[in-house]
Amino acid sequence: MCTFDTKKDAMQNRAIVEHMQPQPEGGAYPIKRVVKDWVTVTADVFGDGHDEVNAVILYRFGKQKKWKEAPMRALGNDAWQGAFQVEEEGMAYFTVLAWVDHPLDWYLGIGKKIAAGVEVEVELQMGADWLDALSKKAKGPAAKAMTEAAEVFRNANRRAEAIELAVSSELLHWIHAYPLRENPTQHEPMQAVRVEDAKASFSSWYEFFPRSAAKHPGQHGTFKDCARALSFVKEMGFDVLYFPPIHPIGTQHRKGKNNSTEAQSGEPGSPWAIGSSLGGHKAVHPELGTEADFLNLVEKAKSMEIDVAMDIAFQASQDHPYVKEHPEWFKWRPDGTVQYAENPPKKYQDVLPFHFETHAWKSLWEELKSIVLYWADRGIRIFRVDNPHTKPFVFWEWLIAEVQRKHPRTIFLSEAFTRPKIMARLARIGFTQSYTYFTWRNHKQEIIQYMEELTKSELREYFRPNFWPNTPDILPYNLQNQGQAACAIRIALAATLSSNYGMYGPVYDLLETKPYPGKEEYWDSEKYEIRVWDWETQTPFRRFIKGLNCIRKTQPALQDTYNITFCETDQEMLLAYYKQTGESRVLVVMNLDPHYMQSGHVRLPYGAFNFEGRSVEVKDLITEEMYRWGGEWNYVELNPERYPCHIFSLQPIS
Amino acid sequence: MCTFDTKKDAMQNRAIVEHMQPQPEGGAYPIKRVVKDWVTVTADVFGDGHDEVNAVILYRFGKQKKWKEAPMRALGNDAWQGAFQVEEEGMAYFTVLAWVDHPLDWYLGIGKKIAAGVEVEVELQMGADWLDALSKKAKGPAAKAMTEAAEVFRNANRRAEAIELAVSSELLHWIHAYPLRENPTQHEPMQAVRVEDAKASFSSWYEFFPRSAAKHPGQHGTFKDCARALSFVKEMGFDVLYFPPIHPIGTQHRKGKNNSTEAQSGEPGSPWAIGSSLGGHKAVHPELGTEADFLNLVEKAKSMEIDVAMDIAFQASQDHPYVKEHPEWFKWRPDGTVQYAENPPKKYQDVLPFHFETHAWKSLWEELKSIVLYWADRGIRIFRVDNPHTKPFVFWEWLIAEVQRKHPRTIFLSEAFTRPKIMARLARIGFTQSYTYFTWRNHKQEIIQYMEELTKSELREYFRPNFWPNTPDILPYNLQNQGQAACAIRIALAATLSSNYGMYGPVYDLLETKPYPGKEEYWDSEKYEIRVWDWETQTPFRRFIKGLNCIRKTQPALQDTYNITFCETDQEMLLAYYKQTGESRVLVVMNLDPHYMQSGHVRLPYGAFNFEGRSVEVKDLITEEMYRWGGEWNYVELNPERYPCHIFSLQPIS
Repeated sequence: MCTFDTKKDAMQNRAIVEHMQPQPEGGAYPIKRVVKDWVTVTADVFGDGHDEVNAVILYRFGKQKKWKEAPMRALGNDAWQGAFQVEEEGMAYFTVLAWVDHPLDWYLGIGKKIAAGVEVEVELQMGADWLDALSKKAKGPAAKAMTEAAEVFRNANRRAEAIELAVSSELLHWIHAYPLRENPTQHEPMQAVRVEDAKASFSSWYEFFPRSAAKHPGQHGTFKDCARALSFVKEMGFDVLYFPPIHPIGTQHRKGKNNSTEAQSGEPGSPWAIGSSLGGHKAVHPELGTEADFLNLVEKAKSMEIDVAMDIAFQASQDHPYVKEHPEWFKWRPDGTVQYAENPPKKYQDVLPFHFETHAWKSLWEELKSIVLYWADRGIRIFRVDNPHTKPFVFWEWLIAEVQRKHPRTIFLSEAFTRPKIMARLARIGFTQSYTYFTWRNHKQEIIQYMEELTKSELREYFRPNFWPNTPDILPYNLQNQGQAACAIRIALAATLSSNYGMYGPVYDLLETKPYPGKEEYWDSEKYEIRVWDWETQTPFRRFIKGLNCIRKTQPALQDTYNITFCETDQEMLLAYYKQTGESRVLVVMNLDPHYMQSGHVRLPYGAFNFEGRSVEVKDLITEEMYRWGGEWNYVELNPERYPCHIFSLQPIS
Repeated sequence: MCTFDTKKDAMQNRAIVEHMQPQPEGGAYPIKRVVKDWVTVTADVFGDGHDEVNAVILYRFGKQKKWKEAPMRALGNDAWQGAFQVEEEGMAYFTVLAWVDHPLDWYLGIGKKIAAGVEVEVELQMGADWLDALSKKAKGPAAKAMTEAAEVFRNANRRAEAIELAVSSELLHWIHAYPLRENPTQHEPMQAVRVEDAKASFSSWYEFFPRSAAKHPGQHGTFKDCARALSFVKEMGFDVLYFPPIHPIGTQHRKGKNNSTEAQSGEPGSPWAIGSSLGGHKAVHPELGTEADFLNLVEKAKSMEIDVAMDIAFQASQDHPYVKEHPEWFKWRPDGTVQYAENPPKKYQDVLPFHFETHAWKSLWEELKSIVLYWADRGIRIFRVDNPHTKPFVFWEWLIAEVQRKHPRTIFLSEAFTRPKIMARLARIGFTQSYTYFTWRNHKQEIIQYMEELTKSELREYFRPNFWPNTPDILPYNLQNQGQAACAIRIALAATLSSNYGMYGPVYDLLETKPYPGKEEYWDSEKYEIRVWDWETQTPFRRFIKGLNCIRKTQPALQDTYNITFCETDQEMLLAYYKQTGESRVLVVMNLDPHYMQSGHVRLPYGAFNFEGRSVEVKDLITEEMYRWGGEWNYVELNPERYPCHIFSLQPIS
């Protein structure tokens, strides 16, 4: 409701801007982009009456005060659209400005009258006035040309010249270039865009336990030992090396082999049971080496263009120093115990949760923030956050903002395998990337439906998926006791469906798929024991994964998650999808059946790439085999014994 | 983004409330209801971790400070729903409150442990503490009972009793009745609801030109003559009598018969060309009588439970007093003229638009507001607004709010036959009812699709349709040179699809359907000449219309637009829909073909009324014929020569 108290300008605004998009949650949170991305903006724009309206996108970066402008065009039914490119990291802002465009209205009106042979004497006089007004906004030759045109309009002896001028494209150009915006309407609120560097949206993760980096069974791996693994990861083409927690491990209620609740002497315990007399979240487990060793490794990785990602698990073992020093950060029960952590049906008897509702919440929150800052100050920019959905949303919103204020390029991956609205909210309030349900999406329709949800709904604006076929916690049923083909399908899907993906190795690349009976968990899980791995042997499967990473690096189409178009196939086991970014055109055809060769036809998405009527040169980027396809439907045959998929590069032949 | 500056409470809120609905446009405008309506509220509600959350609707009326509460229940996927009834006219407000419900969490937890035979000693101690906390919120016997229960929990000698108590429904009742809400989250912003009296959503309009109320050709009808017409309108069962403008008519550029641009001497001109030397919008056309005559008629109508609706047409004839007294309210062109009004392709040479962008906009707006207040002060509560889409939206927002501040029950009908988003916005910013595209929706799929848009989309919250088969401006092609059957179909559709409907008579009830050749307009339109009508003869068609109004009054199901469910038929020409309100169950089956008898089968919407397996007594409310239907699909046969539709009342037989 408005009264005359409202400032005059708003009361005179005749143009309406409604339903500006993207603006999830009414603008409460930034949407996400990386540098050089485009933001396509739509809005409903209209005015009262029959006057022409016009609209532009206003956008600006960082602390700039001055708006830049991008044109918008009418799509029909009063919807308008435009786009702008985000040029630099940091925050960008945009909104839509619309106004009743009187000169444009005049131009279109006189044009119709001239075409109909109607008298336009009065209109020419009005046009002269508009030209005078426009010329005041221009300088130099343009201003002069407009003033001269106004003179022509006013001169009754130059009517033929005036009429030619009145319908000229030059005049239309002036109207657009020097717009007269009386009482323009600026959409409120504006929308913020968090613009990050490319890694936020294109990353390839490899997870391993540094304590399993030693050469010989019985040895505790060290950061120094990790050099071999690091070379392997580099060779394989990954660019994020993610370590489970590297802190001292609790001794009380320590877990034993295969999640036994009673550890035997000498068993190392779960790295997620953080803290002992040797220190807490800011300390390094002595058997791994020193903090300096760790930071040396981080530096070495960085020189190889690999980021080391740390694990942020805000919980404590029973002998974490916090328990004695800050009992007020835990929730004590009448019997003097603290209920151990659970993520039903999983039980973590070796871990105590923090009590976020404590009266001492402020000191707890500050301490937790100081942990992230401790490591960020030492050069860590990527954090994988353990179970963020078991801590308050507002805590994360605050912590991420605080950390990114000091270290703007920090990336947080949300490990929230929970209900969909909770996962979405965590992404919205600040997490850079998110684990997903990909791990359990196996059938063709499941995969298509989930990808449509991630890439075509509002989620695309803020939820960046990171696809994992496995984690130390999850060996999904579809991979249990399976061979190379099943593992190849799942890793190839992850690597080509999502621009962010990762794997927990080397169990994965060495094809270890033995489950804990009846559970989606690994047998002899590294969570509870130290393993020793072969980092050297170049197996065919490792070569396949290396190939995937290589293709991802050379094909910009695979560096985007949202550019996907699913293609028809005539075979339930064949999944096909097309991605295009610039001249990079990739068609993936996957045989979802790990046991049998499948063949069928794939329909090229002519609608997506405008190839209709042309032949296409098709190159399999895995095998380097070349084909020429002349029609819309094309035959494919995939033997999982060889490769489960084609990853085709497409080139139209003119 | 939040910092510690935020008040402690918000930083400790663990419950999340998102996507509260209905809240079109993020709460910028009130939704609409009438007294006794229910508002169903949904929201996504969840918390972090595994603690139980709970939620209620908070609502209040008018200037009450204290919220009332209505319960919400979880629907699955973190969606919650509840409802409250709006009890009084005026503004109501609602929001959703959610909190982590620790006692409920405890109750469900101990219940599971007891069921599993697990030790609950610690839980009983915690339960005693919760009971103590709850008891402080209760009084009298409940408080005492809770204190006693806490004692039982603490007494190690009363374990059997304690365990029985711990799983009792009484304990659950206490938890819900005396909720412990620590750091609850209240959704912002709240949503306003404009609650009006029933007429805003249930009205039957009859439009006629009072100057055509005389008995004999050649006479100018008067307000006194309108007594006959008023009796007719009452007898027919309408409850709004809407007059085109009753003000002095301009003489310059007066329109003649059939929209001729040159009136002959003695021609009366269009009533929408408002203003002459005899006065403007606050004056009454002398040939109709005096203002006192008009107000007497209004009073008489009111005594018959009929509201007289006035026409608000903010425009001026060339000899309106405003033109000389306030030239600053018009847009003068270089040749000293004002461009006449247009609503393309229609031209109104006899009408000048106001210039809403004038520097003197404030005095113009105030004057226009004073016109509405002038008549509202004299007892008029319903205004049909002519072409509101050609005046600024913000002007209407302001004017309607100002008028309703003084006269809260004022109803504004928006006559905006324009683009959909413009129509929607006018409704959103304050218009009570709106003309629609019904006039041009003829085929079965068109009607179903349009009704779904009006009743199942967000429009249902603020856009109240008013269905008209014709207006003085519009004789749609489907009625031109048609007989009774076509007119009966359209009026029956209007009267049963929409709770607000109207007709322009008596051309309609006397079946005058001769068009201006090639246009959707009447030949010999009353807009440009005075007619004389038979108000007495009770024709079969008039009896049919009277019957429709009678059925609408006795069947609450037809007093609601949003309760519609379309039913399957096996015949393209048969349209069927079901409406239910309480025990009023109405099934309409319409033969859309005015020329031929059509027969087919209609499927009862078992899903909508839970009749499955029962016989239904079916009574045609037009013919009083009774049937008994035993199955889901039932035969109907409609002869347009007799009646185009069945309007069945349904009664299940147990």
